[in-house]
Amino acid sequence: MSHAELVSLFLALGLLVGVARALGEVASALRQPAVLGEILAGVLLGPTILGTFWPQATARLFPETGPVAFGLQAMTQVAVVLFLLVAGLEVDLSRIKRQGRMATVVSVTGMLFPFALGFAFVYAAPGLLGKPPETATFLYALFLATALSISALPVIAKILMDLHLFRTDLGMIILAAAIVNDFIGWLLFALVLGLIPGRHVEEGSFDIWTTVTATLAFAAGMLTVGRVALNQMVVRVQAHSAWPAGVLALCLSLALLCGAFAEWIGVHAIFGAFLVGVALGDSSHLRERTRLILHHFVAALFAPLFFASIGLRVNFVESFDPLLCLVVLAIACVGKILGCGGGAILAGMPSREAWALGFGMNARGAMEIILGLLAREAGLIDDRMLVALVVMALVTSMLSGPLMERMLARRKPARFVRYLRDRGFFILGSDKDPFQAIEAVAGGLSTALDSSLETLLEAIRRRDRLTGNGLAPGVRLAHARLSGISAPLVGVALCPEGFRSGGDAEKVRAVVVVLTPQDKEAQQIEILTDLARTFLDARLRRLLLACSSALEMRALLRSSQSEPQH
Amino acid sequence: MSHAELVSLFLALGLLVGVARALGEVASALRQPAVLGEILAGVLLGPTILGTFWPQATARLFPETGPVAFGLQAMTQVAVVLFLLVAGLEVDLSRIKRQGRMATVVSVTGMLFPFALGFAFVYAAPGLLGKPPETATFLYALFLATALSISALPVIAKILMDLHLFRTDLGMIILAAAIVNDFIGWLLFALVLGLIPGRHVEEGSFDIWTTVTATLAFAAGMLTVGRVALNQMVVRVQAHSAWPAGVLALCLSLALLCGAFAEWIGVHAIFGAFLVGVALGDSSHLRERTRLILHHFVAALFAPLFFASIGLRVNFVESFDPLLCLVVLAIACVGKILGCGGGAILAGMPSREAWALGFGMNARGAMEIILGLLAREAGLIDDRMLVALVVMALVTSMLSGPLMERMLARRKPARFVRYLRDRGFFILGSDKDPFQAIEAVAGGLSTALDSSLETLLEAIRRRDRLTGNGLAPGVRLAHARLSGISAPLVGVALCPEGFRSGGDAEKVRAVVVVLTPQDKEAQQIEILTDLARTFLDARLRRLLLACSSALEMRALLRSSQSEPQH
Repeated sequence: MSHAELVSLFLALGLLVGVARALGEVASALRQPAVLGEILAGVLLGPTILGTFWPQATARLFPETGPVAFGLQAMTQVAVVLFLLVAGLEVDLSRIKRQGRMATVVSVTGMLFPFALGFAFVYAAPGLLGKPPETATFLYALFLATALSISALPVIAKILMDLHLFRTDLGMIILAAAIVNDFIGWLLFALVLGLIPGRHVEEGSFDIWTTVTATLAFAAGMLTVGRVALNQMVVRVQAHSAWPAGVLALCLSLALLCGAFAEWIGVHAIFGAFLVGVALGDSSHLRERTRLILHHFVAALFAPLFFASIGLRVNFVESFDPLLCLVVLAIACVGKILGCGGGAILAGMPSREAWALGFGMNARGAMEIILGLLAREAGLIDDRMLVALVVMALVTSMLSGPLMERMLARRKPARFVRYLRDRGFFILGSDKDPFQAIEAVAGGLSTALDSSLETLLEAIRRRDRLTGNGLAPGVRLAHARLSGISAPLVGVALCPEGFRSGGDAEKVRAVVVVLTPQDKEAQQIEILTDLARTFLDARLRRLLLACSSALEMRALLRSSQSEPQH
Repeated sequence: MSHAELVSLFLALGLLVGVARALGEVASALRQPAVLGEILAGVLLGPTILGTFWPQATARLFPETGPVAFGLQAMTQVAVVLFLLVAGLEVDLSRIKRQGRMATVVSVTGMLFPFALGFAFVYAAPGLLGKPPETATFLYALFLATALSISALPVIAKILMDLHLFRTDLGMIILAAAIVNDFIGWLLFALVLGLIPGRHVEEGSFDIWTTVTATLAFAAGMLTVGRVALNQMVVRVQAHSAWPAGVLALCLSLALLCGAFAEWIGVHAIFGAFLVGVALGDSSHLRERTRLILHHFVAALFAPLFFASIGLRVNFVESFDPLLCLVVLAIACVGKILGCGGGAILAGMPSREAWALGFGMNARGAMEIILGLLAREAGLIDDRMLVALVVMALVTSMLSGPLMERMLARRKPARFVRYLRDRGFFILGSDKDPFQAIEAVAGGLSTALDSSLETLLEAIRRRDRLTGNGLAPGVRLAHARLSGISAPLVGVALCPEGFRSGGDAEKVRAVVVVLTPQDKEAQQIEILTDLARTFLDARLRRLLLACSSALEMRALLRSSQSEPQH
């Protein structure tokens, strides 16, 4: 590669990763799945937006052909393979067995119903569903039915964690059903790919049935012999190599090699990487830390890179067909929610939970988009259908969390850091006593209130006479419920040397003031519990007391959150 | 990319990573730097070995041109940029200031002396040093002098950690000197690259002096304003994004973008990534976990990929010139050891430590190889010189650790797991008592000994009457020193339900037997200390008691080692 090509390559990669991750965070902040923002980054940098206003820039950054194009293509192919490795690691085979009957029923009805619906619709109205004239109806029906019936395991797992449902019975059933679902979906997809005409004209390729047979044998082998062999390899590699680089390299090179194998037998490389992930994820010797390193690095670099690259390939404005999007979305939602929810009710689940499960399983995501992308590359569908699938995946993912939340009346417990005000943060000298600190903080917070500082302090004092006020060693709490506010307010005063005290045994170094709405007792309790848990952690307390701004405190608390629960 | 090209790409990447990491581990096991094995993987898979015996395979896996070639090139370019990001993160600017005078003296003499020596030698005997006739003598001398005078920061840091010298005064001075060294070396190298004729003919490139000025301004900017700005960015990103994916993406995209910028102003992209690493590494808000994720993932995927790719580019057998290798090696060693050691003695360091420092600083590594590779791509040197530089880097790295160890009489403390024998591992039923367990283990270990089982048990019993024997809750220790053995032997008997006991308060679930050579008391103490530290960790003890083989125990203990100390 020439000097100028290297500049393009690094610039393109850096922009894709940076913008994708930033928009992903914006999406998360708006309570939407991050993948929405990541795809949007590609839309922004690709032909849809940047390419319309500044075509030279898009052409320079993301050329259609040449060394940079091949380099970017190689990077995104590796990215999706590694993303599927990590998705496979999340699959827990033993969980499927434990949740037995219910998970089986839900996963079967949850697949069959949308599959049948999709299949029937294509035959009934191929034009409405955007079938290109040159594609065989059976193949198109098979593809669309498959794409409509696969749930998005990573999205579902994420939503369950966010709602603190991950380790509940309902959560286990949803997860187990989604795992079975995912797996059958990939087998179906291998079949679809195998049936696409023209995919096998290349020299050295296998015929359709060899591909399907080899795929099934590969899957069966990986999940039986391969699983045991990989477990043995993990323990051997960990016994004889530097940790964790040795076992990480094992996972990564196996994913790439099995990707090559899957590609060779005629399915896409991601299928091989996914199987390696499932087989490795089941290993009792693979340590949590190893999983997390893979998970975090892939989430930071490869996932944004891949999802942003989706947005690069299609002009989303030109190829947006509202009717097609609506039809696909409607079939997808009706099929999945009725299939899963109805199945669960038939199997004896209470109806409220059953519909919550239906909404949960309705989330589509990465899988549909990858399927759509591959199908488009293979010429099976056109750009309009790809856009419709991407829109369907995004909308169902966006709806899933809020609908489950409403159905189960579950939500995230409140955390105090969310309500910490910049104006309520003070660093004071040791000439102040804790009461003066409370006054200072209350003064800062009162600027955001209707009530006067005097009313505020009076409310705090009244409460203080009733309760103990010691939150943790060296940390004093002052709280009150006020009728004039709609959201909580939190302020902090720190004094590293310790406040002047009236003879207390332990010097007070921090004062926390919490004001909550009069009518929301649950919220007050959640915030006080969160405060106690945070400040009782001695290491964290030491770091918090050393903060010099509310911003630093926020950064510290976000980066000290516990690891994901899977 | 076509189906067949994707197969090649994934196969090539999977093989490179897997074989490189495996040979890297073999090198580590032979107490050599891992990078030696990683480069060897490329030699094995590239033109030197595989290409000689099976040229079609090499041509298919690593084609000279076409999509796969560009894909691999993009991957290795990204790999080296991310490797330099991680190397930069290891640089601790405040450390340089603290070690003040001594570090400055050592780094200046340690650079000037080999630089002057290299420069003089090229002018004295250009032919002996392999100068191609078309290269200007001044440029060649400048390049070689630079390549000879840069120490390998990552290799040195690794050796210091291995020898437990990282946090000693001597370790700090070596590290600080290596950091300064590294940094000046890169500036020099930017100058060399800027001076290479033909590099600036590409349209849109800058002239030499613009490049050098821009590089200096870029470096100065990153280390002053950039450092502060990045620190602020880290805290803001951590406050507002998912952790650690948000801050990881920040680091990675900044490395890529600054890489693009450095490439654009006319130096190599790695310089930009290195500067980002140095500036970010200095951030007080960047958390240890973030560093470790980057470090481990890069060590597992990108470092092996890049170093193996070095071996792919050159035929090491054809281009091996023993005389040139010897001359380069001799100048490098003499210049560096005398320069650093002599400088340290002049600055008042005791001579034993000063020479140890000289041997430590003598380690070359990745940097020389990268410099050599870039110089070869630019047509400044030929393959013979590249091979000589690689050989020099490897040999100096190999010598560095053992020579320092000998000079300081420092070595790693012994760990019991190294001496754990498969034949000494037993899982017993609860019908056995701890004494029978000791007999069983001693019986297993005695097969490796001259002395009879009876002598062994007698020695253990004699010792047992003297000491307490309780190692940790539920773990009993039996140890003896024997005259007939040259290395320690360790055996373990586990009984998950607990051994039948003679009325002890706590059930014994594990018996550890340790036999050490009669004349090595220090070793015995180290092993017993290590055993105590290991088994007193309640979480680790629980996992150890659940092991079902010596292999599993080894795997568990290696993957539970504490994180690197930096």
